Amino acid sequence: MKKVAIIMGSDSDRPIVDKTAETLSNFGVEYEMHVYSAHRTPKEKTDFALSADQNGFGVIIAAAGMAAHLAGVIAANTTLPVIGIPCKSATLDGIDALLSVIQMPSGIPVAGVAINGGTNAALLAVEILALSDDELKEKLKEKRALDREKTLEKDKNLNK
Amino acid sequence: MKKVAIIMGSDSDRPIVDKTAETLSNFGVEYEMHVYSAHRTPKEKTDFALSADQNGFGVIIAAAGMAAHLAGVIAANTTLPVIGIPCKSATLDGIDALLSVIQMPSGIPVAGVAINGGTNAALLAVEILALSDDELKEKLKEKRALDREKTLEKDKNLNK
Amino acid sequence: MKKVAIIMGSDSDRPIVDKTAETLSNFGVEYEMHVYSAHRTPKEKTDFALSADQNGFGVIIAAAGMAAHLAGVIAANTTLPVIGIPCKSATLDGIDALLSVIQMPSGIPVAGVAINGGTNAALLAVEILALSDDELKEKLKEKRALDREKTLEKDKNLNK
Amino acid sequence: MKKVAIIMGSDSDRPIVDKTAETLSNFGVEYEMHVYSAHRTPKEKTDFALSADQNGFGVIIAAAGMAAHLAGVIAANTTLPVIGIPCKSATLDGIDALLSVIQMPSGIPVAGVAINGGTNAALLAVEILALSDDELKEKLKEKRALDREKTLEKDKNLNK
Amino acid sequence: MKKVAIIMGSDSDRPIVDKTAETLSNFGVEYEMHVYSAHRTPKEKTDFALSADQNGFGVIIAAAGMAAHLAGVIAANTTLPVIGIPCKSATLDGIDALLSVIQMPSGIPVAGVAINGGTNAALLAVEILALSDDELKEKLKEKRALDREKTLEKDKNLNK
Amino acid sequence: MKKVAIIMGSDSDRPIVDKTAETLSNFGVEYEMHVYSAHRTPKEKTDFALSADQNGFGVIIAAAGMAAHLAGVIAANTTLPVIGIPCKSATLDGIDALLSVIQMPSGIPVAGVAINGGTNAALLAVEILALSDDELKEKLKEKRALDREKTLEKDKNLNK
Amino acid sequence: MKKVAIIMGSDSDRPIVDKTAETLSNFGVEYEMHVYSAHRTPKEKTDFALSADQNGFGVIIAAAGMAAHLAGVIAANTTLPVIGIPCKSATLDGIDALLSVIQMPSGIPVAGVAINGGTNAALLAVEILALSDDELKEKLKEKRALDREKTLEKDKNLNK
Amino acid sequence: MKKVAIIMGSDSDRPIVDKTAETLSNFGVEYEMHVYSAHRTPKEKTDFALSADQNGFGVIIAAAGMAAHLAGVIAANTTLPVIGIPCKSATLDGIDALLSVIQMPSGIPVAGVAINGGTNAALLAVEILALSDDELKEKLKEKRALDREKTLEKDKNLNK
Repeated sequence: MKKVAIIMGSDSDRPIVDKTAETLSNFGVEYEMHVYSAHRTPKEKTDFALSADQNGFGVIIAAAGMAAHLAGVIAANTTLPVIGIPCKSATLDGIDALLSVIQMPSGIPVAGVAINGGTNAALLAVEILALSDDELKEKLKEKRALDREKTLEKDKNLNK
Repeated sequence: MKKVAIIMGSDSDRPIVDKTAETLSNFGVEYEMHVYSAHRTPKEKTDFALSADQNGFGVIIAAAGMAAHLAGVIAANTTLPVIGIPCKSATLDGIDALLSVIQMPSGIPVAGVAINGGTNAALLAVEILALSDDELKEKLKEKRALDREKTLEKDKNLNK
Repeated sequence: MKKVAIIMGSDSDRPIVDKTAETLSNFGVEYEMHVYSAHRTPKEKTDFALSADQNGFGVIIAAAGMAAHLAGVIAANTTLPVIGIPCKSATLDGIDALLSVIQMPSGIPVAGVAINGGTNAALLAVEILALSDDELKEKLKEKRALDREKTLEKDKNLNK
Repeated sequence: MKKVAIIMGSDSDRPIVDKTAETLSNFGVEYEMHVYSAHRTPKEKTDFALSADQNGFGVIIAAAGMAAHLAGVIAANTTLPVIGIPCKSATLDGIDALLSVIQMPSGIPVAGVAINGGTNAALLAVEILALSDDELKEKLKEKRALDREKTLEKDKNLNK
Repeated sequence: MKKVAIIMGSDSDRPIVDKTAETLSNFGVEYEMHVYSAHRTPKEKTDFALSADQNGFGVIIAAAGMAAHLAGVIAANTTLPVIGIPCKSATLDGIDALLSVIQMPSGIPVAGVAINGGTNAALLAVEILALSDDELKEKLKEKRALDREKTLEKDKNLNK
Repeated sequence: MKKVAIIMGSDSDRPIVDKTAETLSNFGVEYEMHVYSAHRTPKEKTDFALSADQNGFGVIIAAAGMAAHLAGVIAANTTLPVIGIPCKSATLDGIDALLSVIQMPSGIPVAGVAINGGTNAALLAVEILALSDDELKEKLKEKRALDREKTLEKDKNLNK
Repeated sequence: MKKVAIIMGSDSDRPIVDKTAETLSNFGVEYEMHVYSAHRTPKEKTDFALSADQNGFGVIIAAAGMAAHLAGVIAANTTLPVIGIPCKSATLDGIDALLSVIQMPSGIPVAGVAINGGTNAALLAVEILALSDDELKEKLKEKRALDREKTLEKDKNLNK
Repeated sequence: MKKVAIIMGSDSDRPIVDKTAETLSNFGVEYEMHVYSAHRTPKEKTDFALSADQNGFGVIIAAAGMAAHLAGVIAANTTLPVIGIPCKSATLDGIDALLSVIQMPSGIPVAGVAINGGTNAALLAVEILALSDDELKEKLKEKRALDREKTLEKDKNLNK
């Protein structure tokens, strides 16, 4: 199975991507985590993106705040699917990062998830990898069933 | 190769998804296009989502405007990757659809693209399918090279 | 008298709907409270909506945050009036939920109230039920009179 | 059956409320249409609201743009359910009217619909009146079935 | 000299209008403070506005949050200048109140100040009253001179 | 009676301030109209503001778009009441001008009106001047009565 | 004198940067114009930025729309001052580009100008170059004087 | 080497500009810090701007919150490059200041940086001064190299 890359633009985004890593672990998906900034380490970021495919990665998840260019400029250097997590920073409640991630011009797609959506970024990556991995697909279905049961359990407790 | 489903919530979204269809065609990716509304045909939308995997689909693209629930409620009924296209409608310039598509709560991911981003939705679907299809990946690289050349051509013409 | 259903998308919305429940209780209106998620329990949510009318409900109140699809997709499965409460979550101050609730496309209406407007959702439900219940209407008028008196009391105290 | 009142704050809102009126007519619901401004005719607006109940109205629909106070100040003078339609004006794309309609403080509810949502306002009124009118409820179900069929017809044509 | 009326829609707006009252006191301008809600005490609010001129008021300051209709509906019942203070509430950071206050349709003006701008509302009222009161104008100039000196003092301390 | 100054930051704001001028004329209020830019003619703008009081002005109305500093920096140089009209420009629908006009820091008030609110700026100026001019106040009441009658006329025609 | 580089992300931004070019020409500042996309030609964009300093450029102006990463990723590869022009595209009125340009994280600055602010980008570049070029500074002062005169001329014509 | 002026509109902006001062110090760039308000000390602000060039300043940095006019009105009185820092205040998360700083009309440019972007304002000033100071340019490159190393160090620690 291909690996997932988790790139954060700054280590202040760590709490968000930790949820990503934890979710991938729960599914038994191998991942590698890096701090590469679109602006402070442009070359390393580019080199990583250019070689990600041949290095065994299947999906790249990029998390960044403010003018969150990271996902877009990684996507510019790979044809692997790139998932962008817009991170909330000290001002504007994440809307700056959201628009910087999702409003990509035609030609280079980024798959955007919710602001601080570290868990869903991982689940989306798993869904993508599960397209050619029936065992993973099974785990997704189990996770869905479990989530459903938890919700119904809460519903039941409510009405006790 | 798996098919791509293109679901629009209303036929007024047709111009947006036509770009999706055209792009998929250019890559030789088979697709099926439907009009299913999250609100006017909830059962058909759900049935489609529930059976999409076994019907040979690999990715579902859902386009809708205003309170764009379509991608989210399709995603709730499948573990296939779902790509949401927020469509601009008569008011609010698409921000309502954008937030309705991308701000999915934890557990059920949707891959959001830009407002009216019909082309990028297709490209993202192709990137996903290309993970297990080297020929498709090659085509993606050719498309990227072509886009690059077109841009450089424009640059050259500028300075003639 | 018909019952009111209070559906929350997640138990994190509990503090908001507790105000709804308390207000309904004050009016002697019977209610049932559930946790059903548009995304994690799509079937249960749909089944509830489809049978709500014959199960004796007159109004359904649905509270959810982020991409708040709950009210809309319940409304898609019933002709009972559905009231949507957009709940504030960790980012964007509730504007995502507000637009997801209120910007419903033509055909399936949702009655939106303010962000976190748990009390007003209940009052709106009571106003609706009071159309065929003069005793309830009387209570509404008493509540209005009481609110008025409280405000005038505060005004009086101000100027002591 | 009770009547519906359609109040517009300015006759520039006419195209929006004409959709309301047409929808009510389709359901055989009697309505009365008025131009009363929260600001230019405060007394007439108040008098209308105060006597609406005894004058045979069951629901009041109020449409206004900009700082759209109309629905709120009508609601302040009646315990009938009040539906507010925020209308788009020359600037800000209707977000000013949307927030003025929906962000009502606790105590006086307004049922908000989408910006320019004249049709849904009517449908919501019909849903409310149908709670005590089985014939009307039947018509709502027929309308839903018809909308569904139209959508499926469009879907079918797409794939011819 | 005419009095200033300070009306708050809810006593939760008290901290904002206390700054208004304190500023008016500093200028020796007489004021009366009231809690009148546009929605909970519509009649009292209207009666106050209708009689404010003959009761010796020269300016009315109205503070409210959320769908802040108070200033607008007071303005509808008087030809005195009405100053609106939009108050920040628990969600949306005051933008709802700001738009509800300032986006008044043509015909009935409200003078809007900044969100939570209790002090500037008072200063604006003083400027208005000072048009026919040279002593008050002199005090305004002294206040300006003092503010200027304080700023220059801070500048000086900075560079010590 | 004191005069009103109408200052526009650019002659592209002319259509907005023409409504101001026309409204003042209808009330028989004398005005002077100028093009002074906060940025292109800072000295002239300041000189005008500093001498406005002694030159017989009672109110200054300043209209500007984009980063609309004009009203604020005029207010900084006079203790006359300054009314700011935020003008819509080619992007952002006027919200930039609105916030630049209304969010004045404590100490220097500006009375903001709606985006492009040229008529209400004039009416507000008239209300201010009418505080010491009973004839003008009478005209305001007549204008209000006329507006009311026009609205009621429209209402009557609707129901013919 | 150093040259100015004008980079546009897409030739659809041409009308904006033509204003930049024209303004630079008026000041006799040499410039080079290019189409380089942050996403479609990442390598060329980077190469240009890396060598801009030694190729005789003093300032780089980058114009792009939507998720406008161009200015930021150029700035990441040079220590020359980079000016970003956010361009309005088909949705969101330019606010996406504005936030993508200006909300740069600490470490890599971009000098943002207004949405579609092609002229001001040029003027800012000239101001920067004029720091070590007195002739250019003189031209700036002349341009300011001319702008001032034009405004005063308009003011004069108004009052003829 | 020319000096940098750091002007804050209020001493509440001190924490932001302290980062500016500290960064300039790290580069050995001389600066002068002042509190001058666009509104409370209009004359001092203007005088400072008018004489800044001949007083040895090369760049002016202006920080202000709310309706942040400071950078714009300084820019109106100098041809030196002016950098504007929009500061977050108690409401609206800094978007008011951002738009007031960056949406400057054509003719008078301001170089905007991120909300609270005190460090980047300094770095931009250093980049500008470095155009004619090779030593400073060398320091910028060292700082970039250091930032890069720090990021790579964090990346390395992550994967230990």
